[in-house]
Amino acid sequence: MKSTGTREPAPPAETESFPDGIRKDFPILGDIVYLDNAATSFSPEPVVEALVEFEHRYRANVGRGVHRLTRIATQRYWHAHEKVARFIGGEAGGVTVFTKNATDAINVVAQGGLSWKPGDRVATTILEHHSNLLPPWRALAKQGGVALDVVGIDADYALDLAALEETLAGGGVRLVAVTHASNVLGVTTPVNEIAGGLCREHGGALLLVDGAQSLPHMPVNVAELGCDFLCFAGGHKMFGPMGGTGGGSLDARGAHRAAGPRRGGMVTSVTAEGGHVPAEGYQRYEAGTPNVGGGIALGVAVDYLSGGIGMEKIHRHEERLTARLIAGGLSGIDGGVTVYAGRKPGARIGGVVSFTIDGVHPQEAAQMLDEDADILVRSGHHCCQPLMEHLNLPEGTVRASLAAFTTEQEIDLLVAAVDEISRGR
Amino acid sequence: MKSTGTREPAPPAETESFPDGIRKDFPILGDIVYLDNAATSFSPEPVVEALVEFEHRYRANVGRGVHRLTRIATQRYWHAHEKVARFIGGEAGGVTVFTKNATDAINVVAQGGLSWKPGDRVATTILEHHSNLLPPWRALAKQGGVALDVVGIDADYALDLAALEETLAGGGVRLVAVTHASNVLGVTTPVNEIAGGLCREHGGALLLVDGAQSLPHMPVNVAELGCDFLCFAGGHKMFGPMGGTGGGSLDARGAHRAAGPRRGGMVTSVTAEGGHVPAEGYQRYEAGTPNVGGGIALGVAVDYLSGGIGMEKIHRHEERLTARLIAGGLSGIDGGVTVYAGRKPGARIGGVVSFTIDGVHPQEAAQMLDEDADILVRSGHHCCQPLMEHLNLPEGTVRASLAAFTTEQEIDLLVAAVDEISRGR
Repeated sequence: MKSTGTREPAPPAETESFPDGIRKDFPILGDIVYLDNAATSFSPEPVVEALVEFEHRYRANVGRGVHRLTRIATQRYWHAHEKVARFIGGEAGGVTVFTKNATDAINVVAQGGLSWKPGDRVATTILEHHSNLLPPWRALAKQGGVALDVVGIDADYALDLAALEETLAGGGVRLVAVTHASNVLGVTTPVNEIAGGLCREHGGALLLVDGAQSLPHMPVNVAELGCDFLCFAGGHKMFGPMGGTGGGSLDARGAHRAAGPRRGGMVTSVTAEGGHVPAEGYQRYEAGTPNVGGGIALGVAVDYLSGGIGMEKIHRHEERLTARLIAGGLSGIDGGVTVYAGRKPGARIGGVVSFTIDGVHPQEAAQMLDEDADILVRSGHHCCQPLMEHLNLPEGTVRASLAAFTTEQEIDLLVAAVDEISRGR
Repeated sequence: MKSTGTREPAPPAETESFPDGIRKDFPILGDIVYLDNAATSFSPEPVVEALVEFEHRYRANVGRGVHRLTRIATQRYWHAHEKVARFIGGEAGGVTVFTKNATDAINVVAQGGLSWKPGDRVATTILEHHSNLLPPWRALAKQGGVALDVVGIDADYALDLAALEETLAGGGVRLVAVTHASNVLGVTTPVNEIAGGLCREHGGALLLVDGAQSLPHMPVNVAELGCDFLCFAGGHKMFGPMGGTGGGSLDARGAHRAAGPRRGGMVTSVTAEGGHVPAEGYQRYEAGTPNVGGGIALGVAVDYLSGGIGMEKIHRHEERLTARLIAGGLSGIDGGVTVYAGRKPGARIGGVVSFTIDGVHPQEAAQMLDEDADILVRSGHHCCQPLMEHLNLPEGTVRASLAAFTTEQEIDLLVAAVDEISRGR
């Protein structure tokens, strides 16, 4: 039995020919142009190999029993938490937890031990994905008498900080829940300013950041952000596996202690009479059997992103392609195409651009792009109906979202295809 | 792009040489004797291939957008639900939901829309895994003033039905939560009798069954059981993937409608003002991005179990090996070995046997079996501390748990190794 000698797949070598050099790691790309990465991106081969190696060589549950497979799995699963913690700058003072997905991560906080009282307020924004709006906060509002304030955006689609400040000044806000980057407009929010400025000034409200869209596309450091909770979608948006590999960093000021555990988590001791002692660390928040192989593969994914390529490089690459897509591309199409994307420089992640084509339903446009041009994009409300209503877009938008493997040529193919649809309308 | 032509892996052919014929499908078995299947079993190659095919050919989220990959993924993910529903006889009248794990499935019910009131009672048993004791029911007891009754077992380790009836007769019991098979003793509970008899007679209490240990080892039919909720651990115990592939069948008498959705689930419509319309079917209970590939691979796993081998055949095989292990093996060792396993014929799943060796700590025994004999078993409390206290086993037990791929020779190796440890103590 040689399972103990199992090796970790190496991250890709830094290559001159980026992004072409990494495309061989994504066989699924085949002959499609994949521009739906904000929904689900793909796993490079080292991640898929890690999944298979787990199944073939050391699959076991973690933290239970003593046999060799569970020892290897436990050590590697723990190591993956360390890698992800390092990836988000959360090594010190916080706990990095793997959850089912971002929705689940946010619920770990909302349904945790914060002991909501009637009259408590939660401030969130109209930029949020349903995950950061419905379950958690609306459920609390309904069941617990917690008031929910939804802050708007300005004409440039940037978060209305004055309105947020006004909300906080009104008193009683225990938690601000804000996305780090909109999955529709690519707009980023000034989390640091909200954390260090607004929240501290107004009674020390806790700050929860939804990093589902920022983590895959730019360097993110939870300590620099200054938030209390950073939740992320994990695997499927950042080159890792789907399912059971979302997560959260529960951080700073002891807030995470207050926030968990909920729904179990691992326990170290239980009696028939009713007491139980929660385990320490991430185990405290992860109830039941986790996706062990998926978590380990997520560790390989962040190695691939940060070690192999580098988040700064990915960010610059996607910024450049996004500029090419908007200024050089969609905006140049003669009439009929409207772009919805963050406008302020420095307040946009690369890689998420919404648009509409006059006279063509977004779903129809997406279908035409797929069928006629092998280009895969997302259409609809992007789980952001309140924002769609605000933008007066009842049919939603077409959204192109990039990844590190996206090429200039693909951007140009999209622009040409949209141009053609626009002319043919 | 040929993704649409993607084929489903075939279940294994019915083979004469069972179980030897299927062992080639589990390369992880290598030169270990794996007897910890009640914790985590393995995936046969068709399941691993399904995972890889998902990554390589059609990875996408489900129920969102219209492009070709999401269409394939959505169709297959839905199909996997159908397969699992058929596997548990839950096609008619119920909803089969994929959850993170059994713990999560039970919480879907406990934290769902049942609107617990102070004074409500939940009856459970001392046989339960912590998953069916702590989060859900104790949390309800603590937060909501719900009373928790824990029913005991008799001298043969069988559930004390008289005590359960007495509890029900006391009135106020809204839900009975009972394991179908103990993960420590292998004892099964007479679910049908509890459902059709006791629950119906005493005010129609809802019945939740924890099928984590029964589903992988015997034919289980939710309609025949007559329960309202059947929760299961999914993938990792029944030849499927780990994580995001547990599940539940929420069934009968409209109870599932009352029980969900909780923590979101997919919605079909949301507005800024606060309303949202839950989706129908399983989407109603699955919040956020699920483990799509894992769910699809779980469908392949149940095909492998029920189509390829057959649950009846697995049940008989494991029964036979368990008899060999107990009567022919451990019980014959000269003194010093005590077996803890269901004693009543017909009230035992094959494949779960606990034992202790006088003078040897269970953990030490498990380590010796691993290091000296390449036999992997579980030691400790098996997430069942209340039961361990009841049995006066503060150090827990050693547990051997079988799977379809377990052979007679492996059973004999275990018996020989335990004999040796027992002599050397």
